[in-house]
Amino acid sequence: MAHNTAVNAVTDAPAITRALAEFVAQHPSRGWSDAVEHEAHRTFLNWFGCAVGAARHEAVEAALAAVQMLQPAPQAQLLGRAERVDMASAALLNGIASHTFDFDDTHLRTIIHPAGPVASAALALAEHCGASGRQLMDALVLGVDVSCRIGNAVYPEHYDRGWHITGSTGMLGAAAACARLLGLDVQQSTMALGIAASQPVGLREQFGTMTKPLHPGAAARAGLMAALMARHGYTASARALEAPRGLLQVFSTKVDWAQATVNLGQQFEISANTYKPFACGIVIHPAIDAATQLRARGVRPEQVERIELKVHSLVLELTGKKEPADGLAAKFSVYHGCAAGLVFGQAGEAEFADAIVTRPDLVALRRQVVASVDPSIDEAAVDMTAVLHDGRREHVHVEHAIGSLQRPMRDTDLEAKFHGLADPVLGTERSTSLIAALWGVAGAADLRALMANAASAAAAH
Amino acid sequence: MAHNTAVNAVTDAPAITRALAEFVAQHPSRGWSDAVEHEAHRTFLNWFGCAVGAARHEAVEAALAAVQMLQPAPQAQLLGRAERVDMASAALLNGIASHTFDFDDTHLRTIIHPAGPVASAALALAEHCGASGRQLMDALVLGVDVSCRIGNAVYPEHYDRGWHITGSTGMLGAAAACARLLGLDVQQSTMALGIAASQPVGLREQFGTMTKPLHPGAAARAGLMAALMARHGYTASARALEAPRGLLQVFSTKVDWAQATVNLGQQFEISANTYKPFACGIVIHPAIDAATQLRARGVRPEQVERIELKVHSLVLELTGKKEPADGLAAKFSVYHGCAAGLVFGQAGEAEFADAIVTRPDLVALRRQVVASVDPSIDEAAVDMTAVLHDGRREHVHVEHAIGSLQRPMRDTDLEAKFHGLADPVLGTERSTSLIAALWGVAGAADLRALMANAASAAAAH
Repeated sequence: MAHNTAVNAVTDAPAITRALAEFVAQHPSRGWSDAVEHEAHRTFLNWFGCAVGAARHEAVEAALAAVQMLQPAPQAQLLGRAERVDMASAALLNGIASHTFDFDDTHLRTIIHPAGPVASAALALAEHCGASGRQLMDALVLGVDVSCRIGNAVYPEHYDRGWHITGSTGMLGAAAACARLLGLDVQQSTMALGIAASQPVGLREQFGTMTKPLHPGAAARAGLMAALMARHGYTASARALEAPRGLLQVFSTKVDWAQATVNLGQQFEISANTYKPFACGIVIHPAIDAATQLRARGVRPEQVERIELKVHSLVLELTGKKEPADGLAAKFSVYHGCAAGLVFGQAGEAEFADAIVTRPDLVALRRQVVASVDPSIDEAAVDMTAVLHDGRREHVHVEHAIGSLQRPMRDTDLEAKFHGLADPVLGTERSTSLIAALWGVAGAADLRALMANAASAAAAH
Repeated sequence: MAHNTAVNAVTDAPAITRALAEFVAQHPSRGWSDAVEHEAHRTFLNWFGCAVGAARHEAVEAALAAVQMLQPAPQAQLLGRAERVDMASAALLNGIASHTFDFDDTHLRTIIHPAGPVASAALALAEHCGASGRQLMDALVLGVDVSCRIGNAVYPEHYDRGWHITGSTGMLGAAAACARLLGLDVQQSTMALGIAASQPVGLREQFGTMTKPLHPGAAARAGLMAALMARHGYTASARALEAPRGLLQVFSTKVDWAQATVNLGQQFEISANTYKPFACGIVIHPAIDAATQLRARGVRPEQVERIELKVHSLVLELTGKKEPADGLAAKFSVYHGCAAGLVFGQAGEAEFADAIVTRPDLVALRRQVVASVDPSIDEAAVDMTAVLHDGRREHVHVEHAIGSLQRPMRDTDLEAKFHGLADPVLGTERSTSLIAALWGVAGAADLRALMANAASAAAAH
């Protein structure tokens, strides 16, 4: 009957719940450099395009059908769709959509996809409450900072344990963003983080199913509701993050407490955000990049006898699927990634369509890929040698893939990616006008025009 | 940077997700003994009274104010209130209310309060979808079985780690109950459990705040939504519970897999459910019980010179507060418990009101209680002797308090408890009629009459 505190629990951890609440409640509007501000816009644009692009995916259709059973009030717009739903459900559904293609942003240090939970919650609340674009962008920067700082404190132990860190830290970022938008004071913001702390979402076991994108969606909804509850006086532990039985010590076996607050308000984690050029897990990107480089050199699939691929162990652990049966499975196949890169020179959502994944030439080509773990290869790197039928060997070494912090996508790359996602849903003209609106969102008096533009005409369905 | 499966993770765990889904989808309606069926009614009645009793508590008010910001559709009734909200929000709010007084049911082996998540989700869905009382009770029995079996598999490690096990297993029971109500097949039920598995709720750090009762409420909502999503084709891992990165190995360091399915369909965990007779921590219950027995024998407070109380050391350690200043403090005072038991013959929420705790006769009486630790007294027991002014000594020994598995509350005790909770909210007449309806709920064609009875007239506010 003895229920002691978990072994090794720390009782004197710093008061990070309150410190983060003070930061969220009190940091000045746009209290950061132009570079941070620009990265926030890149983050928002990239997230928005991902959500629009997947708007008609069967995961979104299924989740929306469930939400419709609640007869939701038309408070907030579903991106790329005709429907409006209550703001908590919009947070859920836009969050699901934005992560469905595995094409969203990545905070590489923690593998968190920070915009999914934070932007989904903040945009739904901001739209319904008539917030300005400035308020929205402030909430986004601060919310992402909170999620990623908690991630920094518990990564990698927490992730290794099996948590999908995007959803298990995301409810805190979403709560922080919504607390900011609601103008909560320090005490209320502390409560919002505390209420959210009891609701981590996400298991890595779900990778490859629709429940993976549920994680940022459910985290967005939980964070938004936590902030609404705090606003109305709902209480939680003011030490919900750091107490011996608080979130961080419950869901991680090691915590680096200093990470939660080091350089708080001076260094912003959104600066370290990156955007995927390829619509799949980040660990495959160096391999796809290498394959596209081979293609750019003139290597043709029919010339290839085999492709020798040397990778970090994580690549095969996470994406070692040799014979993916469909597009979703192919996102966890470094073999398909290599084949798509060599055949198409790109690997957007279209290159992960079921019909592409099962095409005989791609099936044949991916069987020619021989992948092996090389302890000298970094997680961000890959070493690829194409052995051709004529005996020639073409070698590519990628130290950092396109889309990494070292080789970021340019703004024009992001715009091209947005078009690739949004044009099939909204048309090129609408996408072009949305891109302009998104680069200028911080100056918008409210978000009504933006959201009207993001709505698919009902007739288009 | 290695991302290995958690240390000691088991890769060959039995397929419990699917086994439990088969059970939930296929077990015959009322496929259990009369004793199990009756215990299910006791569980439901007790849960219902707790939810009605706390209907106007500030935690419910705050959560409802947040939910109202979503402009919910009036699909399901809030117990003891005038408002109707969408069924997911009703699951949340009734779940919060039912656990607010810490007066609900306890599955003693795991300290799970099983009805909170399961009944809250099932009733909201059943009401809106026009399910019969029989369908509701089937869902309750099966849902409670799923939660408590998962609890049996991970208790006590999981609880020791800091999880509030009611909410962190409750979303599975809620999903199971709702899957059953929706008539999901085995595959869909597997998905419902899988979707729910990503959403455990609850930290023990929140004890003493409104977020403690949020845990069963949020678990109820998560489970209900998981079942709705599964119904519409949303997918999850079919091994979400048992995989190396599935829920059980992620949130507990030790798992006894056999517990999940041993005697499945033959032994029902709801049989081991218990109900609190007194609105306070379980360690004071034997002392209160003894005092009520003295009162039943005719001992009056004004006759008492002193009360000699022999207890287990844990009683004074946890509840040794001699001069509690208010109702909350009195819940940690065995002295107040004895006085209330002798004066009122009961110790419901009303006997812990601030005005009662500070009433001069109660203050005087509790000062006459002399408590001492006796190593021969078990934690579940107490030895009490009232020394009267005329020199007589009245002795009571309680080996197991009323409300324990050994001395369960009688049906009439549960009815009296229901009245104590519901009369102040709905009036005695309405409570009496509700009690009759609850004993007969399995025969109801639908739940409309029951829920109309549970609604407080708007004018009463």
